[in-house]
This record gives sequence, structure tokens and C-alpha cells, in this order.
Amino acid sequence: MKVRRESRPVAGFRAVGIHAGIKRDAPDLAMIVSDEPASVAAVFTKSTVVGAPVEISRARAASGRARGIVVNSGISNVAMGARGIRDAKTMTRIAAREIDCDESEFLVASTGVIGEPLPMDVLTAGIPRAAAGLSVGGWDDAAEAIRTTDTHAKIASTRFKLAGRFSTIQGIAKGSGMIEPNMATMLSFLATDARVAPGVLRGMLRRVCDATYNRLSIDGEGSTSDTVILLANGAAGGAPVRAGSEEARLFEAALLGVCEDLVLQLARDGEGATKLLRVEVGGARTAAEADRAVRRIGNSLLVKTAVFGGDPNWGRIMQTLGAGQISWNPETTRVRVGGILVFSKGRSAGPAARKRAEKAHEADEITIRVDLGSGRHSARLFTCDLSYEYVKINAEYTT
Amino acid sequence: MKVRRESRPVAGFRAVGIHAGIKRDAPDLAMIVSDEPASVAAVFTKSTVVGAPVEISRARAASGRARGIVVNSGISNVAMGARGIRDAKTMTRIAAREIDCDESEFLVASTGVIGEPLPMDVLTAGIPRAAAGLSVGGWDDAAEAIRTTDTHAKIASTRFKLAGRFSTIQGIAKGSGMIEPNMATMLSFLATDARVAPGVLRGMLRRVCDATYNRLSIDGEGSTSDTVILLANGAAGGAPVRAGSEEARLFEAALLGVCEDLVLQLARDGEGATKLLRVEVGGARTAAEADRAVRRIGNSLLVKTAVFGGDPNWGRIMQTLGAGQISWNPETTRVRVGGILVFSKGRSAGPAARKRAEKAHEADEITIRVDLGSGRHSARLFTCDLSYEYVKINAEYTT
Repeated sequence: MKVRRESRPVAGFRAVGIHAGIKRDAPDLAMIVSDEPASVAAVFTKSTVVGAPVEISRARAASGRARGIVVNSGISNVAMGARGIRDAKTMTRIAAREIDCDESEFLVASTGVIGEPLPMDVLTAGIPRAAAGLSVGGWDDAAEAIRTTDTHAKIASTRFKLAGRFSTIQGIAKGSGMIEPNMATMLSFLATDARVAPGVLRGMLRRVCDATYNRLSIDGEGSTSDTVILLANGAAGGAPVRAGSEEARLFEAALLGVCEDLVLQLARDGEGATKLLRVEVGGARTAAEADRAVRRIGNSLLVKTAVFGGDPNWGRIMQTLGAGQISWNPETTRVRVGGILVFSKGRSAGPAARKRAEKAHEADEITIRVDLGSGRHSARLFTCDLSYEYVKINAEYTT
Repeated sequence: MKVRRESRPVAGFRAVGIHAGIKRDAPDLAMIVSDEPASVAAVFTKSTVVGAPVEISRARAASGRARGIVVNSGISNVAMGARGIRDAKTMTRIAAREIDCDESEFLVASTGVIGEPLPMDVLTAGIPRAAAGLSVGGWDDAAEAIRTTDTHAKIASTRFKLAGRFSTIQGIAKGSGMIEPNMATMLSFLATDARVAPGVLRGMLRRVCDATYNRLSIDGEGSTSDTVILLANGAAGGAPVRAGSEEARLFEAALLGVCEDLVLQLARDGEGATKLLRVEVGGARTAAEADRAVRRIGNSLLVKTAVFGGDPNWGRIMQTLGAGQISWNPETTRVRVGGILVFSKGRSAGPAARKRAEKAHEADEITIRVDLGSGRHSARLFTCDLSYEYVKINAEYTT
């Protein structure tokens, strides 16, 4: 099934994005609402310190049912103690009142600067105004309103047949560095009109997150507020998708397609990125070793600056694996940059190969592939290069 | 005892640095020689992939006795297979012949670009020329000749009384990023005229390295060739320093002083650094947690760019600890930047404190101190900020 980078209506859902006034002049408040109670599954940051909205949303997602999500950008709601919890709850209470449901049916997320309280007067006035603007075509505005340092909004959708009926999965996402003051927590909200019970939905979202959002790294940092929420309201009609069925397989593949596309958009738009960098490691002895290897390569400043500089530098790849306590044998290891073999059988592939690998850096994405030749496990990571602009964004912003 | 950043003679040692011709026009070959066989202790990279010189030197240091060290910069000798081992041995054989000792008494190190073989014709001609120039005052030239991307040579020395006789400890060091093509393996060579048996020397060097070189991180990368070698020839006279004695305590303190000073010089001169950054964590529940916390903070791109930007950003510190799975309680944690308390009791210290902490960034070094308030373990790390220049150095160099 084809994933498109544009929005489409999702039956029984409305969305909105407005400028409430947290930011000076950019959209900063979004809502996504299902007309009927929907199944919900969610995945949150693994950070030991989490924002108040994560605490609230995590507890409420556990019920398996929800009506909507309210999100602000500009100021996160982290390290604010009891006040933070109160403010996050107030956001959901106002939103719930507007669409006539219980506040426990609303999830919430905030992204932006840490260390300032939310301007509750602005939100108290803004949320009813946002709710009044909810529409089936409001997804692009919602995607705009959750942005912080992202240079553009991210949206992806797919439409596919599930047991004879058309279903849609649509997602929006934001995040380009990791946290204040780049204000760049990763958030992604997904909606589908397919009918899936919460327990089934949860398993699918967990597996898809492991293969997509958890394979994304801009700068090796996680945020206190990373959040992925998926709502499934069943408005497309038909019987529920059963675990283990052909429909479940189809649905999960579609969900994977949407999430993977959003992750590619996020990596390509990483702070200061000039290129999407895919890192793939194969031939590892264990899955854990493959995972450590891709993270080591994808988070290495030296590898990321080499990619920025257009340099197919196998020496830096070798060195970061060695320093990361990943044992590899130069005799069996093969390194490809941009599809070109630059290291094999213990030595450099020579100047012609290097030239071609340098040339491959002219594209706006590039793949580093390392085959360790010592086992059959593999892993991948989506990241980007490290440019002057990353330093600028993160050094010049003053909180 | 006072550590000075200048060279002095060390009894019974001679040193030299020359331009052999590996680099176009900078010194690239150094030797350090003891007139008599000396005790030797050494510490090497923990990388799973090591350069040929590390293999040779590690095996020879195990004997506990050595006469000298021969070092080249410009090209490292890594990933060269059997040829690399042969070339490293040849370097020591030529050096040993010149000073009339056995090649097994020579240690060797190389630093520079990976992936090219050493130009053995240049070294075969250069080493005898270097040996002919050995002198008691040759230390500054040796420190120059081991440089790669360092902006200046690093030297530190101290002179102190040991059982009634003056002894000297002197060290040189290089390293400013981590590896090719920034060509920046960390190397440090130390010499003393004190008399210390190899077994005693080894224990001291191990402890001192743990407290100094192993507390240094420019960019979170280790090299395939990191090497610290200490020679002790006993030329100052007197009885050997015995383990556990007052002399041993004095000697180890002096060695610590010299190594710590070299590490501060290395951190301050990290690639692109505008500032030395000291990271201190106290109040951790375990030593391992304290260690993870300082490394997490000191290697965080977001923290390092904040320091470059003069921003006392406790939000980024909190976030990187959380993402690093270090549990900390905002209520008990205190964060000081440049000596100014910027976070305590769960909240920001306010605009006046922030102003003063911003001001503290005008100095050429700054300390981030985090007290976790949950235990009594502590750790420290020496690093630097992350500037445009780091990206430039590592992106623009073409191998």
C-alpha cells in the first residue's frame, strides 16, 4: 500500500490547529477528536524524568479508550511539580467540556521550553476557540501547530482495504533535536477509522514503534516528553481486527508504512541536517550487538561530521565500533557507503571506489552499511548528518 | 608540589623531535631514551581494534623494562595487517641499533591518518637522524613532533623531594579529537628519574590514569591507539620507592599532578574548543551511577553546545540524565554552573542567578556541578564545549 505525504479525511475524526498565543506568531495549539469513543494505544519516553502530560496520558491510555488529544507547543510542562500536573489536567478538562465527554477521555502533550509554567489564561481561552474550529480537514493545521524547531510539518497517510472496506491510517509528527531550548521533543499522533480492540492495538503499536520511532536518533538524546498515541475509532465499519488474522497483518503493515515514513521525514529534518543518514548493520553475532553497532555509528560525531563533509570515512566507522566494545574482524567486515564498497578484506577499496562513494554524498540521503561477517543479526537506525547549523541552533538559542 | 607547564631536564633521559618527512612541513618523529634500562609501566586503549604499535608496545611493556620510545605522527599504523606489525617492529629495530640496545627494549607509537601504510623509507632515514639529535633539552621538540590537530604542544613537569633527593617527573601529551582524519589519538609519555620497581610503577600509573586520562572526553570517542607510557630510570639515586611507603604516596601525588595538568591542557585544546568544561557529579547512590552521570553530561551535544553559547541550561542537564536512565529527584537535586546555583528544590533559581551564571561563561573554563542528593558517590570528567570549529575540522578534512 502506498503512503502519501499529505492529509486525507479519516472517518469519524476531526482535527484543528490554531495560534492560541503561547508563541508570538506561530500556531501552538492542536486538538484531535474522535466523534465516538476510540481504542487507544500509546508509547512514551523511557526517561527517568518525565513531563506532567506524560504522567497523565500514560495513566489514561491504560484504560484503552479515549476521545481525543490536546497538544500545545512553545512551552513544555516539565519539572513544574504539582502545578504541572494540575495544569495538564486543566487542559484536558477544558477540552473535554467543549466536546461533552469526561476529562479522563482526553490525553495531553506539551512540547517546548522547560522551566516555565504553561500560560493557563492563554490555554483557557484558546482551547474552546480551537474546539470550535475542529473539522475533518483540520489535520494540516494540527501538524503545523505541534511544530517547534521543525522546518516543516510532517504528515503521512495511507488508505487500504481491510476485509472489503476502505480504511485510512493517518499520522502527524514533530521533533528535530531533542529538547528545550531546541524545544524538540518527538511527538506523533496517529488516527485510524479501522476497528481494533485496545489490546490488539497496543501490541501492534509497540512492535511498530520498535521498528520505527525507536530507530530514530538525531543527537543521541531522548526527551522527557516523547509521546506516540494511536486512536482507532472503527468508523470505517466492519468487524474488529483480530490478533493474528490476515487483517491484523495488513493493518500492522499499513501502520508500519505510515510510521516509517514519518520517521524518515523526522530524520531528514533533524536540526541542521543536510542529509538523511540510514545506518544498517548486518552479520552481527547477537541482536543486541547489531543494535549497539548501529547506535554507535549513527550517534558518532565523527561519522556524522564526515557525512556532512561528504567523506566516505571507514576509519571513523571502524574506530567508533572498536571504542564501543564491539568486536569486529577487519578480515570479514565489509563497509558500504552510498552503496559503494569502501572497505573489505582488511583494506581500503582504493581511490576509484572512494571517488564514487564521495559522489554518492550529493544525494539528500545516504546509507552506511556495515556487514560484520560474524553472525546473522541485523539492525538499522535513521539519523542525519551533523552540520554547522546544528551547533548554531543549539548554541544561539537563549532560554 | 607545583606543576609547571614547561620542560626541565630529567636526569638520565634524552629526547628529540624532528621533521622526518611524513608530514609536509611539521615535526613528525620523536624519541625519548633513558641512558640506562628503566622500569616501564603503560596503559593502552580499551578498543577492540588496536593499532600495530599498541600490540607491540603492550607486549614489551609487560617485561617491566625499557630503554626508550619512538613515535611518529602524520600516519597511524592501524588496519595494516601483517605489514603494520612488521613496520612497527622495524621502527624499534632501527631506533635500538642507534642507541645500542635490543629492539625489545623499545616501545613504539604512531598517530595520524588510518588506512595508509607508513612510509618506511622516510622512517629508515629519519630515525638515525633523530637519534643523533637526542639531548637532555630535547623535550619541547619531542612534544611538538607528536602533535596532529593540537593547536599547541603539551608539556608538564614537577620537581619534588623524595627521601632527601630531588626527583623530577615530566610528561608530554597530544590529542584533541579522537582519530583520523582528525588524527587525534591521545598519546602521553612520562619520564622520571625516581627509582621505582615495575610492579609498583604499574599500580601507580593505573590509578593515576583512572583519575586523569580516563576522565577526559572530547567527543565520546576512544581511539585505536591511545597510549600512556611511563619510564622511571632511577638516575636521581637513592633506594627504590616501596609500595605503601610515604615516598610512594609522594611520588603518586606528583605523578597525579603532572597527568592532571596534561589532561586539563588536552581538554582545553579539544578540537574547536573555546572552553575547558569540568563536569562534577556528587550525591550519587553508586560510583557507577556517578560515572555514567558525568559521561552523559560531558558527552551531551546539547550541553556542550549550550556551554559554547554561554547558556546555563539546567533543562538540558536534567534531560540527558533522564534519557541516560539515571534516576534523579528534582526535589533533592542541585545544579551549579560556574559556581552559581541555577536549579534546586525542583525549580529554576531565577533570572538574577541565570545572569550571573551566563556571565561565568566569559572565563575560558567552566564547571557544571550536579549534586543528586541521594547518596555519597561522586565522579568528574574533563571535556570542552562544542563549536562550529569542531564541525569544520571534522567535516572539511578530506582523507
